[in-house]
Parts: sequence; C-alpha cells; structure tokens
Amino acid sequence: MKQVALGIDIGGTNTDFAFIDREGTILEEDRISTVNFQEPEVFVAALMEKVKLMHKKITEPIEIVGLGIGAPMGNINKGTIEYPADLPWKGIIPLAELIREHTELPILVTNDANAAAVGEMIYGAAQGMKNFVVITLGTGVGSGIVVDGKLVYGHSGFAGEVGHTIVRPGRTNRECGCGRMGCLETYVSATGLKRTLFKIMADSIEPSELRDTSFNAMTSLMIAEAAERGDILARRAFEHTGEMLGLKLADVVAHTDPEAIFLFGGLTLAKDLILEPTIRSFEENLLFVYKGKVKLLPSALNTRSSALLGASALAWDQYDKSRE
Amino acid sequence: MKQVALGIDIGGTNTDFAFIDREGTILEEDRISTVNFQEPEVFVAALMEKVKLMHKKITEPIEIVGLGIGAPMGNINKGTIEYPADLPWKGIIPLAELIREHTELPILVTNDANAAAVGEMIYGAAQGMKNFVVITLGTGVGSGIVVDGKLVYGHSGFAGEVGHTIVRPGRTNRECGCGRMGCLETYVSATGLKRTLFKIMADSIEPSELRDTSFNAMTSLMIAEAAERGDILARRAFEHTGEMLGLKLADVVAHTDPEAIFLFGGLTLAKDLILEPTIRSFEENLLFVYKGKVKLLPSALNTRSSALLGASALAWDQYDKSRE
Repeated sequence: MKQVALGIDIGGTNTDFAFIDREGTILEEDRISTVNFQEPEVFVAALMEKVKLMHKKITEPIEIVGLGIGAPMGNINKGTIEYPADLPWKGIIPLAELIREHTELPILVTNDANAAAVGEMIYGAAQGMKNFVVITLGTGVGSGIVVDGKLVYGHSGFAGEVGHTIVRPGRTNRECGCGRMGCLETYVSATGLKRTLFKIMADSIEPSELRDTSFNAMTSLMIAEAAERGDILARRAFEHTGEMLGLKLADVVAHTDPEAIFLFGGLTLAKDLILEPTIRSFEENLLFVYKGKVKLLPSALNTRSSALLGASALAWDQYDKSRE
Repeated sequence: MKQVALGIDIGGTNTDFAFIDREGTILEEDRISTVNFQEPEVFVAALMEKVKLMHKKITEPIEIVGLGIGAPMGNINKGTIEYPADLPWKGIIPLAELIREHTELPILVTNDANAAAVGEMIYGAAQGMKNFVVITLGTGVGSGIVVDGKLVYGHSGFAGEVGHTIVRPGRTNRECGCGRMGCLETYVSATGLKRTLFKIMADSIEPSELRDTSFNAMTSLMIAEAAERGDILARRAFEHTGEMLGLKLADVVAHTDPEAIFLFGGLTLAKDLILEPTIRSFEENLLFVYKGKVKLLPSALNTRSSALLGASALAWDQYDKSRE
C-alpha cells in the first residue's frame, strides 16, 4: 500500500494541506481559509472534513503515516500554537488535542522554520547531514537547528528563534514586532531589507527609481528588480542586508558548529544579490576554527510547496525514527 | 571493585590529574608540569608514568572506566588539541593517539567549558536536566551546550564558542585574542571586566582606589574587593559587564532554548556583583516566549577541583551511555 504523510501548513490567510509520499511527491493538495474561522475547534472540524474529501479523490489505497503541521508559534513539545500574532485565534490553542478528536494518527506541530529544517533533511540538500541550520528569510526571520540528526526542540519547545537575537543593542535601534529593539529580523527579513532601503534613501541624496514608491507599496521583489537594473541604492540595501546576515550567521556557527547553513524563503529568490554579500561577510566574520568549513547554501526545496513539504517531513521523520 | 574515572586537566602551566568516583569524590590526585615538556610525546609518557605511580598509592582494588581530558582547543570528534594558544606545543597534537600507546581504555578529549558542562550534568546542578548551557567566565569565555542530554560536539568538534560571538560589530571595537573585534570575551571575562574598568576610568573623572594600580597589576579580585568597599567605578564595571553578559545570554537562549544557564569560573566568585546585573539584563532582554522560563544560576561545582571533575565526568558520561 502506498504510504503518505498528511502535511498541513497553517498560514494567516489560508491553510494548505496535501498527501505527500516519502520522496516528496504531492499526490493531492487542497486549501481552506484560515481567516474565516473565529473558533479553532470549528476550523479543525472543517479542515479534517476537507481532508476526508481529498482522501476520496485518491483512487489507489493509501496508508497515512502521520500528520505534520507547520504553524506560526507552533510548539513541538506540547502540540500547541501559542500567542500567534498572525492567526485569528488568541492565547494558547491546543491544536494537536483538537485534531486528536478526529484521528488516531501521530500529530506533530511546529513552526515553519523547524518544518523547513526537517524538510531539508528528509527531501532536500541536508539529506545525510547530522548538524545543520535552516534560516528562513520571509516577512520575518525564522530558524531550525538540527544537532546530531535531530531537530532541537529546546526545554520549552521554542528553540531556534535566531531572528530574535539582537544585532544592534540599544534603545535607539529598530523596533521589532516582538516588542524589543534591534532584532536580526528587523534587518535581514524582506521587511528588514525594505527598512534598510528607506534608511539609505533618507541618508543619501543619490537618485533611485525606488524614490517614487511608498513604504507600504514597496516589496523586496521591487528592490531586487531595481538592483538588477543597476539601481545603486537598491544594491546598497542588499549589500547591507547581506553584511548583517553574514555577521550574525557567524555567531550562529559558534553555538552548534553546523556543517551547513541553508537559506530559505522569499528573500533568497534574489539569489546572488543577497547570497554574495552574505557569504563574503560570513567568511570574514567566522572564528578561525570554523573558517572554510561551513557551507552557506540556498535551500534545495522548491519554495512554492516547501512549507507543505516541510510540514509533511515532520511526520516522515517521526515515522522513520519509530522504525529504527 | 571500586570504579573510578581518570580525570586530566591540561593547563598552560600544570596538568592536574585524579582518580574520581561516580559521586565526584577524588580518591587520589597529583600534578605534572606542562610547560617543561617541549614534545607532547614526552609529556604524555611522563604523565602516564605519574598516573601509574598514583595508582599504586591506592590500596583498594579499582577499575578505571576511562580517561576524560580537558584541554584548551580540545577537539572531541578527533581527540586532538588544535592550535592551542597557551600550551608549549604548536599545530595539531594527536593527544588521544599518543595516549593510546599507553592504555586501551576509552579516551575523551574536549575543552574546559565542554568538560564543565558534562561535570555539571554528572555531578552538579544540571543532574536530570536535558537542555542547558554552561558559560565559563575566566581569563576568556567558554561555553558548553547540552541538547537532549548530550553535549553538542558540532560538525568539526568545536561547538560552543559563545565567547567568540560578536557583541559590538565594527572595526573600532575591542580586539580579541582570536584576531577579530568585539567578541563577547573581550567584555565579560575577567580580562573583559578589567578592560571595562579602564574604559570607565578613562571616561570618568570620579575618584577610585583602583586609579593607583596598573593594567598589568589589576585583577578581577581587586575590582571585586573595591566594589565591595563601595568604589563607584568598580561597581560600574561589574554593572556594565553584567548588562553585556545578560544581553548575550538572551541570544544564547534563542538558539537552543535551555532550561538553565550555569555560570562557572573565576569571575563568578564575585557572586551578586556579577550575578545581579546579569540576571536583570537577561530577563529584560529575553524574547517573550522564554521570559521567566530559563534559570540563570551559579555552577554547583566547587571551582577549585571543577576542571578535574569536569574532565572525569566525560569518562563517566561515556561509561553511563555505553551501559544504557
């Protein structure tokens, strides 16, 4: 019988889900609105009903090995979502417990960066690696840390919040959504790139095609396209972003000494614009014992379906380990 | 038969060694000069001969479960010492290989901070903890990170160099012995405290009893004693050191999400002078998901013999795991 995992990616607007086999092939996928459900119980009931309908579309017999769920502030120790900023639900949502009323299968919940790390290990470029880190560069910055072949969960289930390490200490620095100042994610996320561009536009008097676009209308894609066309301020914004990221990734290495760091998420679509200055700054800032030993690479997961792949990989990883 | 581990602590001046039982009791201990041996081969032969003599002093029959060795730049993956700054030997010293010519017992080599972490787990306040970090505050700053009950070795065997994460980016900051600028250890080690005091003496015009002492003559103990007597500049130096340490430890938490961080080493003898501002700054800078959940504690190991205990704990840890 064909074995599949059910991958579920809960986002602020929509929740995607799919049956995915051990090789990372999506057999069927569908989505449901997240934002339309005020109560998590009703959301879960509707989601599981949609999963049943999706199951019926598959003609061959399948065995589901487990459910892997990526969600903002997903706590892998407890199966909860805790104080999510971007979901319609407040406080601590006992997600695994709610799903447990609909299925007996193993249920794993974690945040998208941890899911991406397991996805990289199961399907991507980290196959066979024992120690690596995945950094997600999207609206925010997330991270998933793997030590000795296992995702680091931490004591309270929230390991890997490298986006909230502080790069610029002091009260006069950039405000972060977490309520503190100077976090990495205020500099090196897609939003951080935009903030850096606006700082550069403020400090410099050089012309730029981006001076006609408002803060709210600006996207990292627009900055990347301007940089490709040679816009000096856009290029400088990528340069600064990469410098800051490389510096901080050198610090990440000094914690768990990984074999590789994978960069994942929207900002990595800018390819060399972000990779080149990041790698340069990373190598420059590494402690001598690590220099030349740690690979800094783009993720090998397809970005469109990577969140789903990552989520399903949680279930596959658990299944693989249960049979060792 | 009484079981013991042979703990060996290789320092720049002397090498201490002892037979230590599972409860952390030292049965016999002795030392040999490190600095007098130009060749590591000769040092190892002399050391192992001294160990034999020490063995003869113990009248009851003992079984040695293994050798645990703490050494600067000790690489636990390879059993080597690599480019140590403070030892008489240069380059890569194949320490475990040299010792292997004298014994068949298991041999484990690591740096003092990793040894301290295992010591805390086997004998100290981290017994039963699965996720914690030990920070050593001595001449430099070291760290040992435990995840899921195991010391993190890393891909190249050099995990846990938190002393060499950068707290003040930029070329104008404090020079570090590692060749870079602005490392944590330039601020929060015993030496860092002294540098901070001299910076404060330079910036301020307030009187201080420490203004009569040269940089080379100054010790962290003198600064602690002056602070105890109410010296304002000495107090301010501890305050700044604690603020910097607390800030950076909040970043450490964002990596592996430990249950506790233990502070170990000479600077912790200053007790509340260093602990109080560190804890305050730590709690203030923690990301909200960690706030109030991570204990920041002094090490429970006796500082005098802690390096030896830590080294022997490596051997006990390996022995315990081999019998699981």
